[in-house]
Amino acid sequence: MNKKMLIGLSFGAGYGSQPGAWRMPWVNPTSFADFDIMVKQAQTAERGKLHFLFLPDGFGTLVDIESVPPMTSLDVMMTLAAVARETKHIGLLATGSTTFNEPYNLARQFKALDVMSHGRAGWNAITSSTNDAAANYGVTIPSSEERYGRAHEAILLIQALWGSWGRNAWIHDQASGKFANKDQILPINLQGKFVGARGPLYIPPSEQGQPIIVHAGGSPNAHQLGGRFADVVIGSAFTIEDARSQRQAFRDAAEGYGRNPDDIKFFAGLMTTITKDRRTALDRRILLTEKEIPQRVAYLQSMLRIPLSIEELGRPLSELQLSNARPSPYDPRSAHALKIAKEGWSLRDIIAHGVIDYHPVIVGSGIEAADHMQAWFEAEAADGFWISTDVYADGIDAFVDEVVPILQERGLFHKEYEGRTLRENLGIQDQYGIDPRIVSTQKY
Amino acid sequence: MNKKMLIGLSFGAGYGSQPGAWRMPWVNPTSFADFDIMVKQAQTAERGKLHFLFLPDGFGTLVDIESVPPMTSLDVMMTLAAVARETKHIGLLATGSTTFNEPYNLARQFKALDVMSHGRAGWNAITSSTNDAAANYGVTIPSSEERYGRAHEAILLIQALWGSWGRNAWIHDQASGKFANKDQILPINLQGKFVGARGPLYIPPSEQGQPIIVHAGGSPNAHQLGGRFADVVIGSAFTIEDARSQRQAFRDAAEGYGRNPDDIKFFAGLMTTITKDRRTALDRRILLTEKEIPQRVAYLQSMLRIPLSIEELGRPLSELQLSNARPSPYDPRSAHALKIAKEGWSLRDIIAHGVIDYHPVIVGSGIEAADHMQAWFEAEAADGFWISTDVYADGIDAFVDEVVPILQERGLFHKEYEGRTLRENLGIQDQYGIDPRIVSTQKY
Ligand SMILES: Cc1cc2nc3c(=O)[nH]c(=O)nc-3n(C[C@H](O)[C@H](O)[C@H](O)COP(=O)(O)O)c2cc1C
Ligand SMILES: Cc1cc2nc3c(=O)[nH]c(=O)nc-3n(C[C@H](O)[C@H](O)[C@H](O)COP(=O)(O)O)c2cc1C
Repeated sequence: MNKKMLIGLSFGAGYGSQPGAWRMPWVNPTSFADFDIMVKQAQTAERGKLHFLFLPDGFGTLVDIESVPPMTSLDVMMTLAAVARETKHIGLLATGSTTFNEPYNLARQFKALDVMSHGRAGWNAITSSTNDAAANYGVTIPSSEERYGRAHEAILLIQALWGSWGRNAWIHDQASGKFANKDQILPINLQGKFVGARGPLYIPPSEQGQPIIVHAGGSPNAHQLGGRFADVVIGSAFTIEDARSQRQAFRDAAEGYGRNPDDIKFFAGLMTTITKDRRTALDRRILLTEKEIPQRVAYLQSMLRIPLSIEELGRPLSELQLSNARPSPYDPRSAHALKIAKEGWSLRDIIAHGVIDYHPVIVGSGIEAADHMQAWFEAEAADGFWISTDVYADGIDAFVDEVVPILQERGLFHKEYEGRTLRENLGIQDQYGIDPRIVSTQKY
Repeated sequence: MNKKMLIGLSFGAGYGSQPGAWRMPWVNPTSFADFDIMVKQAQTAERGKLHFLFLPDGFGTLVDIESVPPMTSLDVMMTLAAVARETKHIGLLATGSTTFNEPYNLARQFKALDVMSHGRAGWNAITSSTNDAAANYGVTIPSSEERYGRAHEAILLIQALWGSWGRNAWIHDQASGKFANKDQILPINLQGKFVGARGPLYIPPSEQGQPIIVHAGGSPNAHQLGGRFADVVIGSAFTIEDARSQRQAFRDAAEGYGRNPDDIKFFAGLMTTITKDRRTALDRRILLTEKEIPQRVAYLQSMLRIPLSIEELGRPLSELQLSNARPSPYDPRSAHALKIAKEGWSLRDIIAHGVIDYHPVIVGSGIEAADHMQAWFEAEAADGFWISTDVYADGIDAFVDEVVPILQERGLFHKEYEGRTLRENLGIQDQYGIDPRIVSTQKY
């Protein structure tokens, strides 16, 4: 088996995926606003040959700001501009809402990032879906139909703007005084129901032509949007079966749009707390989630549908509790939570296994993470993984030093970046010019 | 006289203010897309202790792209993010259209720039005014009333978002687990006729609190907008009288809004070609504008209202031509053009004096530039100047090495940055929290 897995790193606000990350004594508590620290962490990911950083965006509410930091970086594009200048190989992906941005503004920022990083940019083209996000723009959230209608138009339009300078349009020949070849610079003249632009954009192609398209979402609408446009899908699945069916849904949609399904890469999420062994890792996670324990006990109770008490944190569940437990069909994590409980861990340790987190969680040694990734990859549940480490300050290093080498030894992960650009490293074709199927243009 | 003049640098697309800059043999013809070069040029400006870089934006059309580069940088915010990381003192100003941006998006990008630069950001809050700019957004340009109505609301709203974290709101105390003080984080709940947002923003104050406000524009509407909000006005005037009256108009408007008129700093434009003497400078400029000569001869003809011929480029105007010349009342540069012509320069040299450029032009030695600036400054025509150098590759160095030391010797320009932040260096008060006159807030 020659195919290798792809790995990206979730890179949100400056602390890590666990709410308590900022409180850890070895963490600089001002990391949220410290670009030196962000750049250093990005360089660590690059040391591990990870394919990309992924910066989520658009969760503009301050949930529990008294104790929990904001969930996104100060500004995803400004952060990536800084990182672009101080890294060489790693891909730079950020979310940009199609719902609350003017396409022309998104187009030029991502293309500028692509040029300044020498071909390493990717745009996660999502629809915003909450009234909390909408409130930042003084509106309520549009219907799903409108949001996805606008998203399709916005991506078409942005890709056309990106392609409005042909591959060899920029001549910059001083002797003849010819700056650009106008015949290869096309307007786009797109006017849709939701968005429009005349174009052309004023930015020449990057080393990979233009940024890649990423999508993240699980609804049938998301499958269609991703299937039509996405090179990369940032997924979220708790089981191999779930991931396989999500991956298939995107592949089917891609085929429906006349694409080769292998041209859409599905990334499953994985959260990690990597230390030398399971016990140490559980203790680290207990420290990290100390303040969330009561709330998590209550939630686990509803997942297993048995009474649980904060008084019993130190004890395993009783025989009676285990036999009364009925995994909730409303939460896909319930069966796994019960499985961990049956292994005899204390209530505190069950929770520390991350059974209530947003993705599968590895709390243990590098081998455990590598085994999980290998199993999923070989079952064709994912083309790759996006990793959310618990605490950026040392969790990225832990992944890079403890997991990556094992995957490399097993022949599952590359030892070097294959090419110069993100497209080359992901095995995605370059994209130059405007796709003639998308849009018909005239000279401007 | 203790007051010193302020100096900023125009920093557009990567070549310089003259259309031929990119063609010069000592210029890298790919500077437009080369962030290493942009950063180096910014560092030169900082070496000269200039107060800020100013990046215009929003001229999205490609005028004559066959021979002339685009007029703005790839993306003003991405460029400034790169520059912020690799400079320490210089202010970072960019245009952000209030007409074609969502206020929340502008707010977070400029605040992020302010935080990452440790308090050096400024926002040039203008209204877009051309259908060419509007076409990038699939619309036509709104009426002046609408544009300025939206601009007032947008600035109010953005300043409120910037101030939504009070000065000491961010606690980040690991021991107590208190990340922020919610009592000092306020929503804004602004809903205007054109824009709205609930807030709060998720970004803590920078070292100067929040970015400064800049404005550029000459209409009565612009005076009102600038008078109400601007700390800095980027102006454009051809004579001392003109500059004085513009400066006064902004000062009067500021007073009308209850502000101290000294809190609004008026910057006059100045274009420079600085070499050891006038003759060398004229020759440099002739080289730079070679391709534009025929077009400029035609334009000069309409300014002086006498027939001129491209055949006579090498000769001064005749007695007859000079006595027939009638400076056009429609172009404020005409009288100055005639004055230069009467000095006996050849037609080619008259044009090389920059008589058809967008601002007063110094083509000559550092002393000539210093004399001009001193005269304007002492006549209270300007609080400072924003300089457009002919060719960035060596024109910024020429200004820094030949003009700045003279101004410093004359006691007209500082020898060191006074403070840590842009506000400190410009003598503008810090701004923390939401101005209570602006907006009434409740806890969220
Ligand atoms: C893995 C993953 C990552 C996502 N990242 C973001 C994000 O960064 N910003 C955002 O606003 N929404 C993000 N979303 C939300 C989706 O884009 C989408 O709004 C949501 O899934 C609801 O979609 P629906 O309207 O199709 O049901 C993400 C979703 C998933 C599954
Ligand atoms: C010195 C100066 C700089 C300007 N810079 C910009 C700019 O960067 N981007 C832009 O779109 N407009 C810029 N403008 C244009 C003005 O903001 C404004 O749109 C124009 O003056 C018309 O304004 P009015 O509608 O008030 O007449 C600038 C104007 C001046 C005088």
